[in-house]
Amino acid sequence: MSATPGTHMKHEIDQQPAIFADLLAAQEQFAEVAAVIAERRPRFALLAARGSSDHAALYAKYLIEVLLQLPVGLTSPSTTTLYGARPDLTDVLLLTVSQSGGSPDLVAVTESGRASGALTVAVTNTTDSPLASAAELSLNIRAGAEQAVAATKTYSATLLALYLLIDAIRGGGAALARTLPDLAATTLADAADPVEEAVQRYRFAGRMVTTGRGYSLATAHETALKLAETSYLSARSYSGADLLHGPVAAIDAETAVLALCSAGLGGESTREVVEAVHQRGADICAIGSAASKTPAAHRIPVPESAEEIAPILEILPAQQLALGLALARGIDPDNPRGLQKVTKTT
Amino acid sequence: MSATPGTHMKHEIDQQPAIFADLLAAQEQFAEVAAVIAERRPRFALLAARGSSDHAALYAKYLIEVLLQLPVGLTSPSTTTLYGARPDLTDVLLLTVSQSGGSPDLVAVTESGRASGALTVAVTNTTDSPLASAAELSLNIRAGAEQAVAATKTYSATLLALYLLIDAIRGGGAALARTLPDLAATTLADAADPVEEAVQRYRFAGRMVTTGRGYSLATAHETALKLAETSYLSARSYSGADLLHGPVAAIDAETAVLALCSAGLGGESTREVVEAVHQRGADICAIGSAASKTPAAHRIPVPESAEEIAPILEILPAQQLALGLALARGIDPDNPRGLQKVTKTT
Repeated sequence: MSATPGTHMKHEIDQQPAIFADLLAAQEQFAEVAAVIAERRPRFALLAARGSSDHAALYAKYLIEVLLQLPVGLTSPSTTTLYGARPDLTDVLLLTVSQSGGSPDLVAVTESGRASGALTVAVTNTTDSPLASAAELSLNIRAGAEQAVAATKTYSATLLALYLLIDAIRGGGAALARTLPDLAATTLADAADPVEEAVQRYRFAGRMVTTGRGYSLATAHETALKLAETSYLSARSYSGADLLHGPVAAIDAETAVLALCSAGLGGESTREVVEAVHQRGADICAIGSAASKTPAAHRIPVPESAEEIAPILEILPAQQLALGLALARGIDPDNPRGLQKVTKTT
Repeated sequence: MSATPGTHMKHEIDQQPAIFADLLAAQEQFAEVAAVIAERRPRFALLAARGSSDHAALYAKYLIEVLLQLPVGLTSPSTTTLYGARPDLTDVLLLTVSQSGGSPDLVAVTESGRASGALTVAVTNTTDSPLASAAELSLNIRAGAEQAVAATKTYSATLLALYLLIDAIRGGGAALARTLPDLAATTLADAADPVEEAVQRYRFAGRMVTTGRGYSLATAHETALKLAETSYLSARSYSGADLLHGPVAAIDAETAVLALCSAGLGGESTREVVEAVHQRGADICAIGSAASKTPAAHRIPVPESAEEIAPILEILPAQQLALGLALARGIDPDNPRGLQKVTKTT
């Protein structure tokens, strides 16, 4: 237990620019794994993960479809672990994502996938983990030990590692990514005041919805999870499209909506969602580089970046907000009730 | 607008046994489509859908992986519609699911997928819809026009249609499914009293979580959506594994947990989740054929069936509960605020 509530979480949030710089300085691992993947020419990609890592996998899904033009699906370990499914995975790239590398179900999926012909790649923060051993290839997100129970730096480092891998597969030079350490430092500094105002504003919020589209859908899901884990807020995330498809009925003036509004196509198409919830009287907090273009009651700006790397920046103020709300609500986010660092589901 | 609140929704819930019987009597369509699919020998499957249909797609994902041993992923239209991704889909079965068949984004995904080599199959309630026209093959769920805004009979008919399709692909004789009309009628009749008690119990619930694993995860998601759409309850669904991975921190004595507990491997593995939330003081309502084996405060029994068809039955009392809660809370579920029957996202 840390002396001051939230000490670990705050420290790990603030470490992120340095972690990005370190990961960028260790790029050979991505080139090596990318070379093997490119040589094997997978025709289909499957992603398996849990919790925050599942949101990182969702981000990777967009990258793989858009940047690599490869069909990709999110899969769930339970078809393997509960029901013993053993599909033929020849020509399949199976990417498993787990900070700890210790989830038994992901290890089982990897072992089973490898035996069924998949090229297996594990993305973890723990190179000597069972998951890294089970996979044919593995990547190290190099985020260092995470003391806080809620994942912050391991989430953003996983996003960056997945971006660097996929950029390397397409033969990119990681030029966009090299801007991230500076942009991340600016994001954290610039967001401090607007986040503090948002903490005051949402201190008593009973119902919160997060939303985004495209690459930023991952951020919407991760933000809702972070709020639920640390502040015990009843936060529900929806893709903008799904939100308009039904749950918008539950949105009213008592709902706070956190909308991810970055520059680019995903953010632009989120704007119609923001207009719709605005008309229903919701209190909107827009996060992102295009936040100023929305009818939001509150805005947390993020420096502009290419859309495909925006999720690596947008999540930073969302983490600060989760930390701030937890502290304001008298909760120690370093010690959430009933959360363990590695959850073993089988 | 119907005269008495909830008239349409109640009528459509009650129609379901007859709709199952009708769909079973029109099985040739499944045999025909299944024959084409089997002949083309797809190596991967992709599923695309929105809202309730996305939950039906999740059910199909388990069926395809477990019963057909084919790798399968859920995909999202936005990589196509927002970002113009055009992956090579040779050897891919692309299943799109939409009650109305009118979602422009699913039509775009189908057209694009078909042009990229996929075998496209649309599952809809509207044979002359743009989606059914865009796909090479289409299946009719034959549920009849749905007057209520919240999908009930079209959801369960979609589940049954997907089951019959996948069972036909593997050369099954639909023997299990033939029990469904009778089982559904029994489910609706037996659940009436326990659902009414649950309505009284959860009338004032402010926070509700739904959970399930395996095939029944689809039911957990659909139940949460139905509650949010009709009762404006802040309901959040989690796979049992993901729930233990983090959000369990937000569960306490003020949380009502609806747990899907059917006989079989998914329900068995949900039991450990139920134990965990029970220890945290949550009020548990167990729905399913194995509900009696849980430490729940309230139980809604469902007749026992093979696990892979249980979601077609379990959802029935969940629909009754959503209807009952809406009425108890003074809401007309036939006229939810701001919901249209076809939502056009692009």
